[in-house]
Amino acid sequence: MAIINRTVDLNCDFGEGYGIYSFGQDAELLQYVTSVNIACGFHAGDPHTMNTAVKQAMAAGAAIGAHPGLPDRLGFGRRAMQVTASEVYEFVLYQLGALQAFVRAIGGELAHLKPHGALYHMANQDKAVAEAIVRAAMAIDDQLIVYGQSGSQLLDTAMYYGMPSASEVFADRTYEPDGSLASRSKRGAVLQDADEAASQAVAMALQGIAFTPEGAPVRVLADTICLHGDGPHAALFASRIREALIKAGITLQAPGRS
Amino acid sequence: MAIINRTVDLNCDFGEGYGIYSFGQDAELLQYVTSVNIACGFHAGDPHTMNTAVKQAMAAGAAIGAHPGLPDRLGFGRRAMQVTASEVYEFVLYQLGALQAFVRAIGGELAHLKPHGALYHMANQDKAVAEAIVRAAMAIDDQLIVYGQSGSQLLDTAMYYGMPSASEVFADRTYEPDGSLASRSKRGAVLQDADEAASQAVAMALQGIAFTPEGAPVRVLADTICLHGDGPHAALFASRIREALIKAGITLQAPGRS
Amino acid sequence: MAIINRTVDLNCDFGEGYGIYSFGQDAELLQYVTSVNIACGFHAGDPHTMNTAVKQAMAAGAAIGAHPGLPDRLGFGRRAMQVTASEVYEFVLYQLGALQAFVRAIGGELAHLKPHGALYHMANQDKAVAEAIVRAAMAIDDQLIVYGQSGSQLLDTAMYYGMPSASEVFADRTYEPDGSLASRSKRGAVLQDADEAASQAVAMALQGIAFTPEGAPVRVLADTICLHGDGPHAALFASRIREALIKAGITLQAPGRS
Amino acid sequence: MAIINRTVDLNCDFGEGYGIYSFGQDAELLQYVTSVNIACGFHAGDPHTMNTAVKQAMAAGAAIGAHPGLPDRLGFGRRAMQVTASEVYEFVLYQLGALQAFVRAIGGELAHLKPHGALYHMANQDKAVAEAIVRAAMAIDDQLIVYGQSGSQLLDTAMYYGMPSASEVFADRTYEPDGSLASRSKRGAVLQDADEAASQAVAMALQGIAFTPEGAPVRVLADTICLHGDGPHAALFASRIREALIKAGITLQAPGRS
Repeated sequence: MAIINRTVDLNCDFGEGYGIYSFGQDAELLQYVTSVNIACGFHAGDPHTMNTAVKQAMAAGAAIGAHPGLPDRLGFGRRAMQVTASEVYEFVLYQLGALQAFVRAIGGELAHLKPHGALYHMANQDKAVAEAIVRAAMAIDDQLIVYGQSGSQLLDTAMYYGMPSASEVFADRTYEPDGSLASRSKRGAVLQDADEAASQAVAMALQGIAFTPEGAPVRVLADTICLHGDGPHAALFASRIREALIKAGITLQAPGRS
Repeated sequence: MAIINRTVDLNCDFGEGYGIYSFGQDAELLQYVTSVNIACGFHAGDPHTMNTAVKQAMAAGAAIGAHPGLPDRLGFGRRAMQVTASEVYEFVLYQLGALQAFVRAIGGELAHLKPHGALYHMANQDKAVAEAIVRAAMAIDDQLIVYGQSGSQLLDTAMYYGMPSASEVFADRTYEPDGSLASRSKRGAVLQDADEAASQAVAMALQGIAFTPEGAPVRVLADTICLHGDGPHAALFASRIREALIKAGITLQAPGRS
Repeated sequence: MAIINRTVDLNCDFGEGYGIYSFGQDAELLQYVTSVNIACGFHAGDPHTMNTAVKQAMAAGAAIGAHPGLPDRLGFGRRAMQVTASEVYEFVLYQLGALQAFVRAIGGELAHLKPHGALYHMANQDKAVAEAIVRAAMAIDDQLIVYGQSGSQLLDTAMYYGMPSASEVFADRTYEPDGSLASRSKRGAVLQDADEAASQAVAMALQGIAFTPEGAPVRVLADTICLHGDGPHAALFASRIREALIKAGITLQAPGRS
Repeated sequence: MAIINRTVDLNCDFGEGYGIYSFGQDAELLQYVTSVNIACGFHAGDPHTMNTAVKQAMAAGAAIGAHPGLPDRLGFGRRAMQVTASEVYEFVLYQLGALQAFVRAIGGELAHLKPHGALYHMANQDKAVAEAIVRAAMAIDDQLIVYGQSGSQLLDTAMYYGMPSASEVFADRTYEPDGSLASRSKRGAVLQDADEAASQAVAMALQGIAFTPEGAPVRVLADTICLHGDGPHAALFASRIREALIKAGITLQAPGRS
């Protein structure tokens, strides 16, 4: 069995509160991850949450990425909206620029971007959307790393444009034979057990395989593993996955700049 | 009489629409100004209006500045709000970063910032607010030029921090003997005649004097003259002021980087 | 040829500004219509525009209806969004209640509702959305008249629930043989000539027929004719359509309460 | 010592989440209160949170009131803003109408209103603001009960206009001799002990007295006692205050309609 990857990044969404509202378990998760995706004020986040999140991530040594979303705060950016590719380019560029300012203000550098929610899903399959996101990234910094789902159109597009990218997998989700995520409505689509998720994380990182709901292996590319920040067991899953990866001899590290 | 200034900048607010809404006479004004202040999505503007405005300004050769406002779209940022200095810093930094991204995306560079509406007024007198704005500017680019009202706290603060600045005057407004603007409620506070405004513009630029509603001279510093983009006679005033300045031998030019 | 309708309502969208922004030609249009659809703060409108629009419509004797939209101010409610039927119910009920308050505050009564933009289109074909809108209307007032496109699911649903309804046609748009609007991308889909639109309006009201882009008659039911409030020729079209209808002996009147 | 009040209402703010965000301990608090103030979509709340909150309150038998705020979601309506009285009237009327629609949709009736945050504070002292709120209430329902701080301008204004009102006190806050709240910055302004708050609640309800930070009695009128819904000990304080009032023989009941 060929070793595909002995270094992997652990990322989580971060700073997704708004005003007085908080969301997820930022503080707990931060100790387990090597990179964070910070909400930029469209689906979640505001100037203060961004500033705070950037400082926390910097202090923890996590690589800082942008997590741009659709302009739909009420729907948390999870709802599909009919937007043109040129709107996507403008939405993403705006958000990248805003977050970059906070990162640079404290002497850091924006490392990556990962689209959020409905925008992430659109970028999996819609080439024009993927291109719009990659073009916005290039306009900001031609070394910005594009995080996209393993096997997605977004990754192909980043490569086509010569942008660095990182292929993302989900430790607690199972996959279809074609490499797409099994639908949440399917039995076994979401792993309920932290140790199962940890096992899959190790297989993903070490062997480049995930599993179908039925347990058959599926080829994936795991440059970065997403840890969910919400849900009652977020911190438990994160710690188990991290431990298992370390125990398996895998180095946890944010993707380097090319 | 000492010559204070033979070069002056003409600026106007720009790109203050939102979604389907337009505001002011951007296209008409653009031909008269040497710099524009582009709304950044808080009091007005959105990613598309910003992208469009940046491209138009660039094509016209105008220097591009940011026009950050308070987060009050309904009130167009004109309404005083109780915000802390650290909120102001975060609000302004967010908006500067977002606009900077659009400017750099087409190979330009953000030249200046001018706070909008209530934020502009707060920065005239409130030292903590002025400092917050200047610190946000420094975090973006230590050559960013701070536009502030002649005699304002904002200009003093920019100078204190070693940031380049430009002292702004209003050609169609009269002044109090202390250098502040005469209140709009005062008779004669707003010049209704384009030629009067043009005359005052020349006096401002050439001699460093403005006038009280009663016609007495007041000392001002005119690095940049603001042209109003709204109102029925905006284009007329702009063209008359521009013509008069040129006829007086004054060079119209955006403030240079120090 | 059977006479289908000798009384018809002329409606237009109204009060679609926001904050300092105005939209359309409210004042000009108001003199031509018998009912208005007032934006309720989601796709457009705010408490002040609503209050103003309600007072103007009341003074002009126009029937006052609500024009609820999707929560997408940036996209003016024109963009399809993935929303559930229960969200639609809540969005519409919220907006109806808010507008009703302004109407009752000056002694009037909310007469009808007409969904806006993407919501209007969804309600043409999606039964669950149509039902959500009708249920919101019923919750407000079981005599509220539901305006829906001729032949739409929304009208069928209103009838099914025993709610009064008004079938809407567009004087300046041509139709497919199945009674749906010809797509704007099709040649001849939008009538460019005010007299042509006026002729079609008369045929709609008097004979219940519209025309295909090729000129073949299509059966429609014209309880109310929509006059567009934006576009450079809005007032011209409105006046010509109105004149032609009156000249043809048709009574212009808002639909009565059942 | 004269008995001022043997019946008292316990109210709490309710439904102050937004989209995916929740705030406060709605479910826990609901069992202790006799009336709730539901956020209406400006400082907090959205159509879904309102619909949910209304149904929960109805099911629990609590009287349902509106909790309108300033249009400042980012600042949670806590930040003073320069708004005119006519804007306040329109802001409040809009929110009352929207909430009323949800209450009536399930066969209930809106019982009261209590302004939120900065609007509450403005209504304590600013007569024009108080009048705007009372006029909005009258426009909705002339039996709507106006909750205002004991001794406030809002209560005086409600009485002047013949509107029913309820005088509100805070069990966990101490008072100045003039009946205003002691500033939070003052030592002893906020009672940290649940039993102390419960004692004061009993004294308020039974004797019409509150205490200064130093323990001197202050005259207050306690028609309704506010229970805070946020903070780590919200449920504990609520249960202790409720128990103490019942033990003291006080009837807990929402204010009746006149």
